[in-house]
Amino acid sequence: MTVENQEADCGCFLSAWLWFNKLVKKLMFKVVDTASNAKKLGQEDPRRIVHSLKVGFAITLVSLFYYFEPKFDYEGFGVSAMWAVLTVVVVFEFSVGATLGRAINRGIATFLGGSLAVGAHRLACFSGSKTLEPIVLGIFLFSIAAIVTYLRFLPKLKARYDYGVLIFILTFSLVSVSGYHDKEVLEIAHTRLSTILIGSATALVVCIFIYPVWAGEELHIKISSNLEKLGSFLEVFGAEYLNTARGAASGQKASDLHGYKSVLNSKGSEEVLANFAKWEPRHGKFRYRHPWAQYLEVGGIARDCAYRIHALNGYLNYETQIEQEIRTRIQEPCMKVSTECGHVLKELALAMKTMTYPLTIKVHIENTKLAAENLKSLLQANSSWEEIIFSEIIPIATVASLLIETVSYTINMAESFDQLATLARFKKTNRFALARIRTGSWKRKRVVPEQNTESAHHHVIAVE
Amino acid sequence: MTVENQEADCGCFLSAWLWFNKLVKKLMFKVVDTASNAKKLGQEDPRRIVHSLKVGFAITLVSLFYYFEPKFDYEGFGVSAMWAVLTVVVVFEFSVGATLGRAINRGIATFLGGSLAVGAHRLACFSGSKTLEPIVLGIFLFSIAAIVTYLRFLPKLKARYDYGVLIFILTFSLVSVSGYHDKEVLEIAHTRLSTILIGSATALVVCIFIYPVWAGEELHIKISSNLEKLGSFLEVFGAEYLNTARGAASGQKASDLHGYKSVLNSKGSEEVLANFAKWEPRHGKFRYRHPWAQYLEVGGIARDCAYRIHALNGYLNYETQIEQEIRTRIQEPCMKVSTECGHVLKELALAMKTMTYPLTIKVHIENTKLAAENLKSLLQANSSWEEIIFSEIIPIATVASLLIETVSYTINMAESFDQLATLARFKKTNRFALARIRTGSWKRKRVVPEQNTESAHHHVIAVE
Repeated sequence: MTVENQEADCGCFLSAWLWFNKLVKKLMFKVVDTASNAKKLGQEDPRRIVHSLKVGFAITLVSLFYYFEPKFDYEGFGVSAMWAVLTVVVVFEFSVGATLGRAINRGIATFLGGSLAVGAHRLACFSGSKTLEPIVLGIFLFSIAAIVTYLRFLPKLKARYDYGVLIFILTFSLVSVSGYHDKEVLEIAHTRLSTILIGSATALVVCIFIYPVWAGEELHIKISSNLEKLGSFLEVFGAEYLNTARGAASGQKASDLHGYKSVLNSKGSEEVLANFAKWEPRHGKFRYRHPWAQYLEVGGIARDCAYRIHALNGYLNYETQIEQEIRTRIQEPCMKVSTECGHVLKELALAMKTMTYPLTIKVHIENTKLAAENLKSLLQANSSWEEIIFSEIIPIATVASLLIETVSYTINMAESFDQLATLARFKKTNRFALARIRTGSWKRKRVVPEQNTESAHHHVIAVE
Repeated sequence: MTVENQEADCGCFLSAWLWFNKLVKKLMFKVVDTASNAKKLGQEDPRRIVHSLKVGFAITLVSLFYYFEPKFDYEGFGVSAMWAVLTVVVVFEFSVGATLGRAINRGIATFLGGSLAVGAHRLACFSGSKTLEPIVLGIFLFSIAAIVTYLRFLPKLKARYDYGVLIFILTFSLVSVSGYHDKEVLEIAHTRLSTILIGSATALVVCIFIYPVWAGEELHIKISSNLEKLGSFLEVFGAEYLNTARGAASGQKASDLHGYKSVLNSKGSEEVLANFAKWEPRHGKFRYRHPWAQYLEVGGIARDCAYRIHALNGYLNYETQIEQEIRTRIQEPCMKVSTECGHVLKELALAMKTMTYPLTIKVHIENTKLAAENLKSLLQANSSWEEIIFSEIIPIATVASLLIETVSYTINMAESFDQLATLARFKKTNRFALARIRTGSWKRKRVVPEQNTESAHHHVIAVE
């Protein structure tokens, strides 16, 4: 071997080593990254850790039950045990509503699919001949599978019963093709149904009785926090808009300003949660037929509000050469509208969270309406704007007009919330004293019905 | 029996009959309603009917294959047959990408879960004692199930591999708990894997080779049609806005005006389609690594545009007491901007649909920019607005400013589309002659690079 060859070998070895080193480092980085992500997930929502332990527990429970069950000993691999374990794995979801929905769908669909399959099998047996039987069965199977698959496209069926329809097809095909004699078919259908019931029951018991997560509560909190995000934006916008003295927004304020963005695309997840919530029994403050649809309506109006706020956001950092005088003159009413509207939204959010219906909301709404009227009349006061350059004022006019629109959506939302409060029987309370402490501004408020102030102190304790 | 009793009986019978009659009518109505809905679903998209027939065919195929398979005769109910049928039912989805994703997830997860379970089983056997074995197995099962369930919360894993992770847990629990002797466990793992492969293969072959539905193509068409909807709105808005002579919008126009609303909430479905599309092999004009992420970016900007259009829509029926003179003066430039912007969006939509990159788009963009500049300078021409009442002009100013924003988003979108065209290797063509025929307005266009007109006729045939 020459020196050159040795050197070439060395070079090869070195580059291979470097490549390997890089790969290991990359892998290590990925593992560390995933681990830190996983840790963050747990810190964000510790219920995720609890859920994982619950799933592990339920699977172990049902598995060991069948492991020790003597009647499957001779078979080695009990078909029944399999179905029960499978059911737990497939049915167990994060929220009670989702788990209940899947379990009920699975149970009923297995029963229906199994019964129909037994019927189809009997009909096929009537044909008598051994050659005709599989043909008849095949025709049944094809037509049932095709028709039911087609029905899965129906939006109403898809929203709540999609899993059930799938399991119907599954059970029908499994049972109808499976056996030869009537007795066997019946036994199979029966075993499948009973093991699925055991699996579902295990999953449900663990899901409901160990730190349950209720989809309805999730929806409730989500809509309330959406309203709060919108309110926070408007409050910060009210304080920051046209405020030339401001530096970079501080951490809390920046998060207040960007929070609303998640509301823009919240439609899908809200609908999913409402669908799950419909399965849930009475829990905590929520009845069985809690008006979940009304939550979706409030959420929809919140989204409409968010679209306007998204448009407003474009003007937050709008640098324009407006004279100080105009700024000052238009700043006050715009900020007032934004802040008042933010108050209403935050008040609605708090009311939803505590499931109360404080009469102070009406006061805030009246204040907001008044502020919006002030802004409108300011814009309509022709005399005061004569000397202004038109182009300078367009952004401000747009902001004002978007704010007025936001107010009208907020009023719609308050009406929708009113309906929700009636349907869901929120406690009507007078949280006036509380509001006074919280905002520290009740003396400045213009519309304060006398009777509210009088009865305020009787109810305060009941609220908090 | 007295006459009164008879009459009472008659009354009872009558009301029962009426109630029954009502129930039957209600049921009939529901059945007819569902049937007409189902019919509509098929008319809207005949691929749904084809899909249902495909599913029926695949299930029947794999069932009958196992029905005739002699080796399962003595068992009556072949476990293997079951897994294969189950796999077809569970894996078969509407689009090729979804089916492929599930099949690959299921196959790999079964292999990994099965292997790990065999390993865990061997380890448990090492313990030697019969009492210790289930305890060791139980600990394994609990920890693996809990850890892997926790990992399902990782967003990256959830987006593409959620089903695989579920099947991993499933297979691991099934195989590890199932048997007693090493040989049996290996056999079970092997059988499960092979039947799942047969089931997946059947589903895939039927899904891909009989009228396939490609998720990538769906996404492509969806984004392109979203752009077209936005373009249609702007074109109609340009024609209708402040048009006092208009009556109620005609059918076609009304649908043009409301089409954009579906764009507002399109984020979720676009992301799902992009995830499916990533699984798909080369098909038609789409390569394996087609830039699907770039489609999502274009879709995102389209949504931003749609938010502005949603705000504009509020002003379409805005009744205001503006003098005819102002209307006429501001109408022209606003309509011009809206129409030109609509042209650009429709041109982009057409370019995406045909996967070409016509140079005429640049002409339209220049025209739009010019129109927007015109509008801006009109608003900034202070002299011409002196005698106008400020309040009257605010809605118009808002519309103008929203239109200018829409233009800037459209320009962003054109840039993003430009990147997409480069990444996806769209054919660069000169569709000028085509555009001339389509819009019939090229003579009025202001920015027409000379070289385009020269080479126009060479490429026309290549495009269509």
